[in-house]
Amino acid sequence: MIHIAVDGMGGDYAPKEQIEGVYQALKAFEDIHITVYGEYEKMAPFLKGDHPRLEFVESHGVIPMGEKDPVGAIRSNRKSSMAMALKAVKDGTHAACVSSGATQALIAGGHILIGRMKGIKRTAIAPVLPTADPTKQFILIDSGANVEIKAEHMVQQAYFATVYAREVLGVEDPTVGLINIGTEEGKGRLLDTQVASLLKTHDAINFYGNVEPKDVLMPPSDILLSDGFTANILMKTIEGTAKGMSTILKAELSRGILGKIGLVLSLGNLKRFKKRLDPAEIGGAMIYGLDGVLIKAQGSSKATGFFNGIRQARYVVKQDVLGKVKEIIEAEKVS
Amino acid sequence: MIHIAVDGMGGDYAPKEQIEGVYQALKAFEDIHITVYGEYEKMAPFLKGDHPRLEFVESHGVIPMGEKDPVGAIRSNRKSSMAMALKAVKDGTHAACVSSGATQALIAGGHILIGRMKGIKRTAIAPVLPTADPTKQFILIDSGANVEIKAEHMVQQAYFATVYAREVLGVEDPTVGLINIGTEEGKGRLLDTQVASLLKTHDAINFYGNVEPKDVLMPPSDILLSDGFTANILMKTIEGTAKGMSTILKAELSRGILGKIGLVLSLGNLKRFKKRLDPAEIGGAMIYGLDGVLIKAQGSSKATGFFNGIRQARYVVKQDVLGKVKEIIEAEKVS
Repeated sequence: MIHIAVDGMGGDYAPKEQIEGVYQALKAFEDIHITVYGEYEKMAPFLKGDHPRLEFVESHGVIPMGEKDPVGAIRSNRKSSMAMALKAVKDGTHAACVSSGATQALIAGGHILIGRMKGIKRTAIAPVLPTADPTKQFILIDSGANVEIKAEHMVQQAYFATVYAREVLGVEDPTVGLINIGTEEGKGRLLDTQVASLLKTHDAINFYGNVEPKDVLMPPSDILLSDGFTANILMKTIEGTAKGMSTILKAELSRGILGKIGLVLSLGNLKRFKKRLDPAEIGGAMIYGLDGVLIKAQGSSKATGFFNGIRQARYVVKQDVLGKVKEIIEAEKVS
Repeated sequence: MIHIAVDGMGGDYAPKEQIEGVYQALKAFEDIHITVYGEYEKMAPFLKGDHPRLEFVESHGVIPMGEKDPVGAIRSNRKSSMAMALKAVKDGTHAACVSSGATQALIAGGHILIGRMKGIKRTAIAPVLPTADPTKQFILIDSGANVEIKAEHMVQQAYFATVYAREVLGVEDPTVGLINIGTEEGKGRLLDTQVASLLKTHDAINFYGNVEPKDVLMPPSDILLSDGFTANILMKTIEGTAKGMSTILKAELSRGILGKIGLVLSLGNLKRFKKRLDPAEIGGAMIYGLDGVLIKAQGSSKATGFFNGIRQARYVVKQDVLGKVKEIIEAEKVS
């Protein structure tokens, strides 16, 4: 049985959608047991009676979305749903934690309550993003945990992503691309040239080379790597461009009579298309580098998004991603 | 009469489209005189007889697109069309230079042959990009001249953009937004917090605050500022997302019979929509910080794109953008 700790109160639509997602996950997977940390009174309206693999533990207080002092918030709210769910992983009673609460608080909580994996110096947020090809996706690191970082720490994050891509996404020999302003060797900042030379020498990593974001929705590598500032800018630019283009498209398609007819006829297709880019559908981002499995579901998660986060947590545990990363870290130390 | 020096040989479709753009500009504006630097033999097929405000000067050699050693290329090709056109600005015989040649070579050439404006420490490439609103655009700096830069130099680039937005784009009181990973004060790298505090204190700048790229096609400010690495990543991510979304859209719209009918009916609108994002339509990017007007037209410019570059050069000269920037730099020194 895989025990998963769920933060029932974090997220824009908590606890309703979180609890609905939990029920979906229990139905889909018979090998998981879920403990939901939350406030009974607020959760009560959404409960559907007893379930043999479901447990509720009362928590007190919620760390608000966009919390300005994440470290302070975690330290002074040890009975919050987020802190209790994280603590359950630290204690070893649970193999993974899933939360759609405030990102920075969750990362701070991961450090304080779970702790970093031995030998790993920096955590990373690693969402899996869609590409223009419906059958393909890519891992983006670091989407915002470390805005300033050293080259060797980025390389450790690349180990993590490589194991994740192989074990969880089923990519046989995952390639790592470095986000850069040109494809030629030597392009970019000092940091980028340092990372490139390190990645080239590591046996555990299949380095593709530099990747320019003008191919960001058809990336030539399975993993796109940069620091937490750049990758976050990249992720938000994808979001902004998609949003802006939808606006343009609607305006353009509704222009003229033929366009109006076209729009009506295309509505079903347009909806499908937007769904693929919807954060609620993308599922969770794993926090790499902790000594436990932590999945950050989107703050705007509805039931399906949160269900995807739990599914992901289960699979990361099943495939022993952390154990396999530890093997690489150990091997690096010996060599 | 405004004298403009044109690099006739730089660009993917040179010299044909460049010469066609020159003729369009001469027809549109009676107050310009153009000198085209290029190889007679290659240009000959595209010439349309004499023009009283057009002159050709023979050049030798072309600096190839994607040149790896831009500084070396400029130094050892003083008779190339690019170098000669730049030199014409330095000599004072021409008020502006327009080129769609290799970007890095053009920037290197701008430094070596024109020189930086007194008091300005770093140049910047500043394209004007479209937004989701057809009536609005924004200036992006620096789209790739300086991958590593100090805060005070970014602030100088913001002066330039402010003057450009007011004088050339006609924005009454242009606002400067700092590209960042969050809108709250204090977000980002050390560089970003330094730039933000400097921008706040400068009278010549109307600082909007941080701008997250999830609003990049509907930006709340007229100017978006970052270092040359970040802004280049942002620009290429817009391009990549637009390209990827067009692919997705085509696939989605052609799915199913209703979708196919919709696609046929919408073709005209789709074309209009893509045209607004087409680099060939966007026109040129000004290189800020030089002691002369230098416009970089897109490498893939067709006649219309190159014509837009010349139009832009003319207007920058007419509005005395450089003179007005110098006034701000002088005032800053006194204060």
